[in-house]
Amino acid sequence: MTDLKQKILSAVANDLLSIEAALIDHLNPHFELVGKVAGHILFAGGKRLRPLLTILAARACGYRGDAAFRTAVIFEYLHAATLLHDDVVDGGELRRGSQAAHQVWDPPTAVLTGDFLLARSLALAADTGLPEVIRTIAAITEQMSQGEIEQLHRKGDLSLDEAAYLDVIRCKTAVLFQGACRSGALISTAREDEVRALGDYGHHLGMAFQMADDLLDYTMDSDALGKKAGADLREGKLTLPVIHTLKHAKTDDRHWISDLIRARDFTPGQFERLVELLQHNGSIAYTRRCAVDQVAAAKAKLTTFPRVPECAVLSDIADYALLRTS
Amino acid sequence: MTDLKQKILSAVANDLLSIEAALIDHLNPHFELVGKVAGHILFAGGKRLRPLLTILAARACGYRGDAAFRTAVIFEYLHAATLLHDDVVDGGELRRGSQAAHQVWDPPTAVLTGDFLLARSLALAADTGLPEVIRTIAAITEQMSQGEIEQLHRKGDLSLDEAAYLDVIRCKTAVLFQGACRSGALISTAREDEVRALGDYGHHLGMAFQMADDLLDYTMDSDALGKKAGADLREGKLTLPVIHTLKHAKTDDRHWISDLIRARDFTPGQFERLVELLQHNGSIAYTRRCAVDQVAAAKAKLTTFPRVPECAVLSDIADYALLRTS
Repeated sequence: MTDLKQKILSAVANDLLSIEAALIDHLNPHFELVGKVAGHILFAGGKRLRPLLTILAARACGYRGDAAFRTAVIFEYLHAATLLHDDVVDGGELRRGSQAAHQVWDPPTAVLTGDFLLARSLALAADTGLPEVIRTIAAITEQMSQGEIEQLHRKGDLSLDEAAYLDVIRCKTAVLFQGACRSGALISTAREDEVRALGDYGHHLGMAFQMADDLLDYTMDSDALGKKAGADLREGKLTLPVIHTLKHAKTDDRHWISDLIRARDFTPGQFERLVELLQHNGSIAYTRRCAVDQVAAAKAKLTTFPRVPECAVLSDIADYALLRTS
Repeated sequence: MTDLKQKILSAVANDLLSIEAALIDHLNPHFELVGKVAGHILFAGGKRLRPLLTILAARACGYRGDAAFRTAVIFEYLHAATLLHDDVVDGGELRRGSQAAHQVWDPPTAVLTGDFLLARSLALAADTGLPEVIRTIAAITEQMSQGEIEQLHRKGDLSLDEAAYLDVIRCKTAVLFQGACRSGALISTAREDEVRALGDYGHHLGMAFQMADDLLDYTMDSDALGKKAGADLREGKLTLPVIHTLKHAKTDDRHWISDLIRARDFTPGQFERLVELLQHNGSIAYTRRCAVDQVAAAKAKLTTFPRVPECAVLSDIADYALLRTS
């Protein structure tokens, strides 16, 4: 474990325990099986990053109660719902090292349990009684589902440019981070500029996380990532490194990469050559720079809160986005 | 078309046109494809019963504005979302006479578009700014997803009794009818007893509709129903007629039916014999009586609103639940 990760975990150890307890307390299934399937995805070792952001954001704005955990779990439930549906969509067999729910049970059960978690999130949002929180959470689910559909249907689409990529990752990833932070601010007595600053922090953090995640697919050993390197490309999912190279590579190389994407399959040797092309065209470095810029933008938003201890943790989390290996 | 259906349609013709327009106006997709897939299910000829209930309930409570249509469409979006997910779950190939969305596109697209419609519903609920409406709609989605999961996992479960059946159809069908009526009352200036009466009307109406629907599977010509008679049984879905017969039939007959359910397949001759057993054991008549009781209970709730013209339509709709053939 990196020192930074250790430092973050020490700072939030108690909060993580409270989040675990709240995840159990607020699930509230009507039928036993629903609790079992939801529990399978919820308690398989997630990082709890999203609910943690809500707690830290609320505290950064002076909130001191325990009710924030009830709002915080919404973002883990939403996250779990999208994981359940994504695994059905992508046919992913493993999730957090365990068999995916649609494998343990079946795809319909995974879909419906995802629906339940979506609905549970919105019921908890309604319970806050805060119209802005409710609107934020409804908007998140709208945008995430649309981001996923767009991503799915642009698989293998060689015309996907950087702007379209940024729009997709904003919808599918950044809005959830943004909403988690924004809602934390909203349940406290934050000023409007504080709400906006924390929402923006979350947005940039989410963009950085997704870029770093997309980069990992081309820079990691297969083992460390828990999935095969090049998995995105094998699905036809174009991410920033490849989009950048397709724009800047020589014609021959561009054709070669396009053929590889169309084939949706490659040998280890071909993948190695692709990574070389990504490096040669500066696309790995460019993607990293974009992620670094997003981290800087996220941290800049924290200056709204001088000398607030929670902001030091939020700042560390932003740095961690670039360091993580899984 | 029956006279009653014609009478209802004449009374609500203008409202149905406004509902059609509102369904288009409030969909508001961010990506083009999302609108296309959602439109495929939304504009393939639904009865618009649920949004109509909202409009009629609101007017019964004295509401006279046009904003009710914005709330009413929520219930058609929710209905469409569950149809999309149900068709994926059941592998149904046709929906309202057209190819199901998961066949035109693919199951993941159908799942994600269902998610979008769920989310859109909750965003529109949030827009009402009425905490009770928001809570109602969040609770509906929670219960519907759970009802579907329970139904799915009790397929072929011969121990499913009447109480469990009633709980499942309440969750998967009646809560949506109940919510549509309740929300109509909530957006008007209804008294608490009026809100409760209309919610109860919706609940009983939904129960009657589902029972009548379940009965159709054993009483209709295949053609008129647009799906094969006995389709529920072929899926292992136990509904009230079969549950009643399993309880009251002679041991031999019970074993024969149990074997049929386990096999999930039957010849036309076997199906005919099953229907004879359902008739012989009074199970068709019993189910119809249960549905009639629900209709009576629904109509009894309307006495809270003496001489309100909308209640005459609501009363006709309740009667129609028993008459419909598709």
